[in-house]
Amino acid sequence: MRRLLLLTVLLSFLSVSSQNKVEKWRIYEIVLKGTTKTNPFTDVQLSAQFSNGKTVKTVSGFYDGNGIYKIRFMPQETGIWSCITTSNLKSLHNKKARFECITNSENNHGPVIVKDTFNFAYSDNKAYYPFGTTCYAWVHQGDSLAELTLKTLSNGYFNKMRMCIFPKDYDWNKKEPILYPFEGKALTNWDYTRFNPAYFQNIEKRIAQLDSLGIEADLIVFHPYDRWGFQKMDRKTDDLYINYIISRFAAYKNVWWSMANEYDFMKHKKMEDWDHYIQLFAEKDPYNHLRNIHHGSVMYNHTNPLLTHASIQNEDTYKAKELRLRFKKPIIYDECRYEGNINWSWGNLTAEEMVNKFWRGVTNGGFVGHGETYLTENPVKWGYKSDAEMWWSKGGVLRGKSHERIKFLKQIVESAPGYLTPVINYEWWMPYSAVGYKDEYFLNYYNMDQPVAQIVKLPENSKYKLEIINGWDMTITAVEGEFSGTSLIQLPGKPFTAIRFTKIRK
Amino acid sequence: MRRLLLLTVLLSFLSVSSQNKVEKWRIYEIVLKGTTKTNPFTDVQLSAQFSNGKTVKTVSGFYDGNGIYKIRFMPQETGIWSCITTSNLKSLHNKKARFECITNSENNHGPVIVKDTFNFAYSDNKAYYPFGTTCYAWVHQGDSLAELTLKTLSNGYFNKMRMCIFPKDYDWNKKEPILYPFEGKALTNWDYTRFNPAYFQNIEKRIAQLDSLGIEADLIVFHPYDRWGFQKMDRKTDDLYINYIISRFAAYKNVWWSMANEYDFMKHKKMEDWDHYIQLFAEKDPYNHLRNIHHGSVMYNHTNPLLTHASIQNEDTYKAKELRLRFKKPIIYDECRYEGNINWSWGNLTAEEMVNKFWRGVTNGGFVGHGETYLTENPVKWGYKSDAEMWWSKGGVLRGKSHERIKFLKQIVESAPGYLTPVINYEWWMPYSAVGYKDEYFLNYYNMDQPVAQIVKLPENSKYKLEIINGWDMTITAVEGEFSGTSLIQLPGKPFTAIRFTKIRK
Repeated sequence: MRRLLLLTVLLSFLSVSSQNKVEKWRIYEIVLKGTTKTNPFTDVQLSAQFSNGKTVKTVSGFYDGNGIYKIRFMPQETGIWSCITTSNLKSLHNKKARFECITNSENNHGPVIVKDTFNFAYSDNKAYYPFGTTCYAWVHQGDSLAELTLKTLSNGYFNKMRMCIFPKDYDWNKKEPILYPFEGKALTNWDYTRFNPAYFQNIEKRIAQLDSLGIEADLIVFHPYDRWGFQKMDRKTDDLYINYIISRFAAYKNVWWSMANEYDFMKHKKMEDWDHYIQLFAEKDPYNHLRNIHHGSVMYNHTNPLLTHASIQNEDTYKAKELRLRFKKPIIYDECRYEGNINWSWGNLTAEEMVNKFWRGVTNGGFVGHGETYLTENPVKWGYKSDAEMWWSKGGVLRGKSHERIKFLKQIVESAPGYLTPVINYEWWMPYSAVGYKDEYFLNYYNMDQPVAQIVKLPENSKYKLEIINGWDMTITAVEGEFSGTSLIQLPGKPFTAIRFTKIRK
Repeated sequence: MRRLLLLTVLLSFLSVSSQNKVEKWRIYEIVLKGTTKTNPFTDVQLSAQFSNGKTVKTVSGFYDGNGIYKIRFMPQETGIWSCITTSNLKSLHNKKARFECITNSENNHGPVIVKDTFNFAYSDNKAYYPFGTTCYAWVHQGDSLAELTLKTLSNGYFNKMRMCIFPKDYDWNKKEPILYPFEGKALTNWDYTRFNPAYFQNIEKRIAQLDSLGIEADLIVFHPYDRWGFQKMDRKTDDLYINYIISRFAAYKNVWWSMANEYDFMKHKKMEDWDHYIQLFAEKDPYNHLRNIHHGSVMYNHTNPLLTHASIQNEDTYKAKELRLRFKKPIIYDECRYEGNINWSWGNLTAEEMVNKFWRGVTNGGFVGHGETYLTENPVKWGYKSDAEMWWSKGGVLRGKSHERIKFLKQIVESAPGYLTPVINYEWWMPYSAVGYKDEYFLNYYNMDQPVAQIVKLPENSKYKLEIINGWDMTITAVEGEFSGTSLIQLPGKPFTAIRFTKIRK
């Protein structure tokens, strides 16, 4: 899988030949051999300048173990590119290469960017609507479980994955990870100046696999659920780590940078630390990947212009409408509690409530993230200190009922004629969730209420067809007739009802 | 029914004999004949001073039509009372009576008062937990429907009724009332100086019938849903009206005064008007019945010391805990949306959500009110301007599924060993609704979540029995064993689960 994505170019002592080609937004990789007499992570500086005659980008390299140094570059323009390396290590210095960046293939839409203030698109302008899930530590569980996770994901429920770079220590997460990020001795005696390349190679493999499934990798840089000491590294180590992951991961088009999960629960960091990390990613990432920070209970000030969108934890997904106005950015409720049955309140939503939170978020102009925490073991016998396998942290299989319905909603949103905007000029008696696209399309959601009728107001000068949707039953039923102006329409009187009006083109 | 409650004493030209007896908190009524040459509502002043030697109360009389003037008095102390009338009409002046106030009978607990800051009790100290419902205009629908309403209420679902004194104009409320409160000509040509006694006699009959069922009458003095002009009477008329209803109704022990339904939707009144009405009731009602004011969207400042409790409209019943701290008063969510299926968002809750809102309110230290709006007619054929019969305004029968569950919850609350107080010293991971009574009793509610286990913390030095309750299934299941300190307990993994711990007495 990964071989399809990477164009590996062994430069060694020679410049690369100009025959080499790489697809736009894929990875052009320079591989160099160099000495390792000093510490190759801290003492060797390596970068390359890439130019196509118009655009010049300088990209940092990194040490990948076994005497191999690499520089990865994601070209964003087609045409001929040349590059030249710079290093304080003679064997890595002044190496040159030329290659052609060719047109992207059909399923390659490039990195996701912010579009029209509140939305996202791929770099080729195709709309991207995040429908994410969460498997915090799936990359640290070994190949067998990771392959199962990928198989589950291949069903197309989700197009974003929240995942931690560091391993996770938490209830039901007590096994040691398969690899550690630093050299040294577990659990806490690390040489923070020496990374373990195999650890990061494993993550890269998973990032690439997600990409091949059309899934964005929302990489969580720091998190508080830790028994190894990675949450309390000093500023110098943090910076070294951030530079290293940018050098390694940034050329993957599907990478997003999430500064933290629950930054406010990390007692060893101060607000100025977070501001610094955000700044660092903004300065060092040559591709300007999406940047966010996720809170536990105290929301970060998402007005920071270096944050591309607001990553929210709260169950009030219907407030996306308010948060849009407050932050003037896309709003993603990355955590609104999870479908599951555990004792912690964040993980015992019914599937119904999980689906409802998705619908309410989306029909208020926001986006929502999924997670699943079904405990299949005897809870009292095993307790919450056991090592149960739950999707939310380890991946594997989905046991719930919400993901199919989330996919149904995703398909509805993706089939809309454009980005959906909250309809705010409703009367006081229409407080339900409603979005629309210009005067062409309206999607109203009646939550878990059970009205048998509703008044709807449409533009007087156009005619609309009406469909009644049930977000739980996953049904779309066309209603006979054409609608215009004010109507009293009949509804099925059951929860999860939505209505969709589409303008009839003459 | 009414005859059991009233001790009617025809004084006419003679003083009443001292044999007359009245139960404590029942009504002693003086009936006088007088001339009606002038306007008996505005030109005749009539009052009586009642004394038992220790307590002296002055009570206003009123004109009841057909040359009859009445003075009603609710004695609050047993023993011999004497009284003497004062009037500017010679035939009503200086009339004397003596009667004995005897001990209250078993089902007579007297008026409800505020108890221990956040709760209510009857005057005999028996705890009163409001579980109210709403039939705004039930007294204006005629006898046949009113009798059906009373039959429904006789099943003991509720112990408070929110009801309007004035008739109601609203969607599905388009019939004319059986009587009008003023003389004059419908719809709007009223003589506001002349009340229609029959209108108020009808209401009194209903108040007395509610009392006989153990139901408090939460009388709504003003409301905005009006096509007759009663919402925009001038201050002088309002005051005349308030004095009249105090004179007539205040002697009924089950009366509460609600200044308004949705005061903020009454555009003809200013805030100072509402302050004035509250003041007027506080000054004129000899028995200091409970006083509240209910809002539509802008909450009144319930810190006003003349308001006995906060009457709230909002669906966030779990915030009772916060409102207690803010207002330092009992919190009643008199409207948290209604079970029903109508187009208005306030009337299309599922039964599940109605029940959930009750449980969340009660297990956060508040009280919640019920209403039901099931439309059985074809909504599109009939529209919302039809005259459908729905419990919320007209009474009749209940068609929903929440009232039986509300009764179940009411029985749980009434069987607790004392007033329930929010448990606020929980850990961050225990955000569910929890109340307790001292160290004797704890009631935790897990909302519509589905945990299969929970950690519970009980005092270390006592032992408790555990019962698992399902608020929807109406089941109470004893769990084997005794509990103390911290335990991980198994739960059924379904919505509406609550747990009840009761201290085992040695």
